Amino acid sequence: MKKLKGAVIGLGYWGPNIVRNFLKIPDVELVSICDISKKSIENAKLSFPPMEMTTDPDKIFANDEIDFVSIATPVSTHFELALRALDSGKHVLLEKPMTLSSSEAKKLIKKAEMMNKILMVGHTFLYADSIQKIKKMIENKNFGEVLYFDSTRVNLGKFQSDVNVVWDLAPHDFSILQYLFGSPQSIHVLGSSHISKKKLEIAHIYLKYTNNFICHIHVSWLSPLKIRSILIGGTKKMISYDDIAPSEKIKLYEKSVSINKSEVTPFSPAYRSGNVIIPHLSQKEALLTELEHFVYCIKKNKKPLSSGEDGLEVVKMLEACDKSLVMKKEVSYV
Amino acid sequence: MKKLKGAVIGLGYWGPNIVRNFLKIPDVELVSICDISKKSIENAKLSFPPMEMTTDPDKIFANDEIDFVSIATPVSTHFELALRALDSGKHVLLEKPMTLSSSEAKKLIKKAEMMNKILMVGHTFLYADSIQKIKKMIENKNFGEVLYFDSTRVNLGKFQSDVNVVWDLAPHDFSILQYLFGSPQSIHVLGSSHISKKKLEIAHIYLKYTNNFICHIHVSWLSPLKIRSILIGGTKKMISYDDIAPSEKIKLYEKSVSINKSEVTPFSPAYRSGNVIIPHLSQKEALLTELEHFVYCIKKNKKPLSSGEDGLEVVKMLEACDKSLVMKKEVSYV
Amino acid sequence: MKKLKGAVIGLGYWGPNIVRNFLKIPDVELVSICDISKKSIENAKLSFPPMEMTTDPDKIFANDEIDFVSIATPVSTHFELALRALDSGKHVLLEKPMTLSSSEAKKLIKKAEMMNKILMVGHTFLYADSIQKIKKMIENKNFGEVLYFDSTRVNLGKFQSDVNVVWDLAPHDFSILQYLFGSPQSIHVLGSSHISKKKLEIAHIYLKYTNNFICHIHVSWLSPLKIRSILIGGTKKMISYDDIAPSEKIKLYEKSVSINKSEVTPFSPAYRSGNVIIPHLSQKEALLTELEHFVYCIKKNKKPLSSGEDGLEVVKMLEACDKSLVMKKEVSYV
Amino acid sequence: MKKLKGAVIGLGYWGPNIVRNFLKIPDVELVSICDISKKSIENAKLSFPPMEMTTDPDKIFANDEIDFVSIATPVSTHFELALRALDSGKHVLLEKPMTLSSSEAKKLIKKAEMMNKILMVGHTFLYADSIQKIKKMIENKNFGEVLYFDSTRVNLGKFQSDVNVVWDLAPHDFSILQYLFGSPQSIHVLGSSHISKKKLEIAHIYLKYTNNFICHIHVSWLSPLKIRSILIGGTKKMISYDDIAPSEKIKLYEKSVSINKSEVTPFSPAYRSGNVIIPHLSQKEALLTELEHFVYCIKKNKKPLSSGEDGLEVVKMLEACDKSLVMKKEVSYV
Repeated sequence: MKKLKGAVIGLGYWGPNIVRNFLKIPDVELVSICDISKKSIENAKLSFPPMEMTTDPDKIFANDEIDFVSIATPVSTHFELALRALDSGKHVLLEKPMTLSSSEAKKLIKKAEMMNKILMVGHTFLYADSIQKIKKMIENKNFGEVLYFDSTRVNLGKFQSDVNVVWDLAPHDFSILQYLFGSPQSIHVLGSSHISKKKLEIAHIYLKYTNNFICHIHVSWLSPLKIRSILIGGTKKMISYDDIAPSEKIKLYEKSVSINKSEVTPFSPAYRSGNVIIPHLSQKEALLTELEHFVYCIKKNKKPLSSGEDGLEVVKMLEACDKSLVMKKEVSYV
Repeated sequence: MKKLKGAVIGLGYWGPNIVRNFLKIPDVELVSICDISKKSIENAKLSFPPMEMTTDPDKIFANDEIDFVSIATPVSTHFELALRALDSGKHVLLEKPMTLSSSEAKKLIKKAEMMNKILMVGHTFLYADSIQKIKKMIENKNFGEVLYFDSTRVNLGKFQSDVNVVWDLAPHDFSILQYLFGSPQSIHVLGSSHISKKKLEIAHIYLKYTNNFICHIHVSWLSPLKIRSILIGGTKKMISYDDIAPSEKIKLYEKSVSINKSEVTPFSPAYRSGNVIIPHLSQKEALLTELEHFVYCIKKNKKPLSSGEDGLEVVKMLEACDKSLVMKKEVSYV
Repeated sequence: MKKLKGAVIGLGYWGPNIVRNFLKIPDVELVSICDISKKSIENAKLSFPPMEMTTDPDKIFANDEIDFVSIATPVSTHFELALRALDSGKHVLLEKPMTLSSSEAKKLIKKAEMMNKILMVGHTFLYADSIQKIKKMIENKNFGEVLYFDSTRVNLGKFQSDVNVVWDLAPHDFSILQYLFGSPQSIHVLGSSHISKKKLEIAHIYLKYTNNFICHIHVSWLSPLKIRSILIGGTKKMISYDDIAPSEKIKLYEKSVSINKSEVTPFSPAYRSGNVIIPHLSQKEALLTELEHFVYCIKKNKKPLSSGEDGLEVVKMLEACDKSLVMKKEVSYV
Repeated sequence: MKKLKGAVIGLGYWGPNIVRNFLKIPDVELVSICDISKKSIENAKLSFPPMEMTTDPDKIFANDEIDFVSIATPVSTHFELALRALDSGKHVLLEKPMTLSSSEAKKLIKKAEMMNKILMVGHTFLYADSIQKIKKMIENKNFGEVLYFDSTRVNLGKFQSDVNVVWDLAPHDFSILQYLFGSPQSIHVLGSSHISKKKLEIAHIYLKYTNNFICHIHVSWLSPLKIRSILIGGTKKMISYDDIAPSEKIKLYEKSVSINKSEVTPFSPAYRSGNVIIPHLSQKEALLTELEHFVYCIKKNKKPLSSGEDGLEVVKMLEACDKSLVMKKEVSYV
């Protein structure tokens, strides 16, 4: 079978990982990589096998042999590059957040439909075995109803030049939330800026869902410790997920508390505590699974697990965060 | 020198620890302990050396030989018991939170003044070597300006019958904040109830101080993990404090980020990373230090480190939390 | 039913814990406690309910009302005190190691038989839920054959005045090994002394069992870290036990490696990796379970789980260690 | 300045890391890589920039333009490949253990001298910032005299086909020991084989130095946990080094115990406990530092930090281990 020919635009922090993983996929032939910086191109020549290496993305758009483009540039350039890639008839894998506004995201979705091309967003966490295992745990009936989701995603830096800490770090949690629980009803953000005095560096994001399910996400560029920790509480079981741990990242706790509802007078909570299960996680890089899924969707013309529509929802959540910060109150999410 | 004669009212969870530690202080003779429950009194007889053991606090108030009373009963009973103890001419050590309202707290402070008696509140953390060491670190000039305080104080249960999770767990942090940083300018609480559907079981508390110093406190009765963790960030150093860790609880990080302010155009943060220092902590029980301080204040007629006025501030912060919850917005703290 | 009357001799580090726990057992009335040090007796008067408190153990032996004696004195005094207690018709709970020689241990066993009294040794670990759970895991068929037991039991101090580090720390592991696996075939000890230059402060103990099952125990008084860690490997599963961890002490790993034996030429190990299970452990103090078992054995005239014979085996293992050190080689254990 | 031209032989587990790092060094032009497996060569073509990629090492030896060869093949092939590389006038970087026997190692050293070429052994740990920091700590006078070195290097697999667990894992510790402390006086190994029943899978290695300094190294292929932990005790300070920890790998403890020597009668140890210091470690890959050092030594004609002579000492220690296992006793190291 003919190999798909691909290109990668953007060789900053994440792009080289995309290149490295595409090189592992037998169905793919990477034919071009592109970055605006000459130095990045020179480094690429020293690191990667021979292919076109250019500072001009037009060479990629103009090349009719190229089937898909993966875009890993700064957010502010996503819209234009993705639009031109789709316009030139290429499938697109776009990094997150997808665009700087939902109107741009919608235009990309429409364009992809029109051109009959795959538009996928790089929500890598959805392809991690950890999130797949967590999804199964939550969907299991004996997890009970989900009560809360609490995420701490903090470290020292890296300050971004074009976005604040919410746009930088929260898309990870927003994509996970959309995947596991769908859209919230309202969003409320409290945040502060201490070093730059311009852009948020610390933020706490509240999300309310129906059925009294609530989420809290703490993002920060000013923590001495790097923490990537999520707690999910259900009425019957609870989950902790420590993404920094070198092993045993996920723990499923047979722990719960309940109230004897028939009993009217005395307040009597009952605690249940059982074993903890640590599921075995695949060692496969989530990014490789993501890229394989992209290739699969192109070949079979399938909607990706992280489609343009999913990317749009994450952008809408980020816009709601901005709105909440400006209005200094809870805003509804539509 | 004559020994001080003391009594302890309340032998629930905390009271027996108070008794056990008073028994270690040579200057003190414990002459009476009291609990409303006959079973608690019977257990006390099996555990402690001989002294009066009674279900009737009046026996204590009526005993003119008794110099001080330590009160470790449910919060709702604090005011009346403390008032009667002061009225009967005894020094009082009162557990936290001091009372259910600031007006009650003020009455106790006035009464203690009138009777010329010591009124101390059991803000035990202030007497822990950990908080003493943190205070010194923060006050050191090379810590820089303090930027934020972030506390996570969560576990599974124990649900309290007379107070919600904020009144149960936040007084620890509020007393630490008052000790280290004084009073905030505003308080904002977001919270939810999932099991009891009546009282808050999860809450996030925001406190703003002057100079852009911000605090966030996460309290919960619904976490599968017990976490007692505080991060404090300064412009030059940062502190982590893990109170669950069996050792190495406090770490001082030589870490910071700064922005070259003269440089106008490009956003250029500079990161500094150095050694971490773990200070040696005394193994002495903080409660023993607290009780010794109480005895010292009685003997020397000194104002305690955790005076009635300090207890009042904590109650005022709790009242502001209640107000924020009712009004669903940030409220100013006066 | 009539309460058993008991006494405790030795109020050093461990004795007060024994007293505190006996006070919790309804079937027991503690009538006397004894320590050679007047200061210890004075402290006891300040801590414990009224009972006879004496520096003279003869008062206990002479008291015909006393049913049992618990002995928690330095090892060198065990034999004489236990012998006199048995001689005076009392059941005896003796701390570990039971005696300084196996001949003494045998005399105590014989004496207890003659007097028809219970002789139990304080192998507390056998009464911990952790070891009970581990025993069940190992006995489960899907654990496979046990391959090795590796224990690290190190900390800074406390240097003992009458025994070396092997006699101080290894009895814990020896009692666990006897309970789980029985007696070894040979013992080999390598050790060194650095500070005192007299008594071993670091030692590595090898034990060989039949069927190629091997054990290694590392004990040290010179480690900056306190470690209490045991690994047990089976052909199908493996166990880790971290006794310092504030929670999640035991982990059962579905991990193994096997060799395709039919395949002759290429060496081809197969690795299996599955979930990890962390069993829920009871919070009950192991010492309380131990004391309740002692009382049960007295009442029902049953052989204790940690009988004099079990204590003797531990002493024999310690003697073999001494012999190996003197002969500087592996010695057989009979 | 002219770039050095280099080649890498062996593209198994470690070789690709060597290639990747050589590609980062501006002074080096990698012109050829070689592996016996065609599949490895095909993978290399997909991963690396264009250069000669061959299954025939003779092409490298015959190429007079090539200045140096890095050899990362199985141990059993080291001697012949290195000899031919030196014979053909190339500098050699040889992985550890250097050879299967000290006589082979000596021949390589002699050959390198004769050809006036650099012979360096890949003792990567010496180039890690962690070991550099530890070396400085130990050499500082306030560390006191070093008492012991205790290393645990265990995990599940990977079983090696041509060497046992000692030859597989102990060279890391042996190279560190040689670097920090020089050669031991005697070696004693106790080990066992459980799965293969042929080659050691678990071993404990004792090394005695002068001045009562002792070492213990535990290596295993049968541990459910991956542990890479070293403790080093001095008379005044102690060090722990956890190479698995995602951060804070090294801790310097201000802990010690001393004996009042003038005091004859009572045994009275004094414990000192102070702060813990966690030094900041460079994030630079140790392998890159190693390769840069190799290039530096070639250019300046300097003896490497890990010379052929250093590699020989490690092989001699491994031979002593084999001898101890055969003779079942401690053997002297000359």
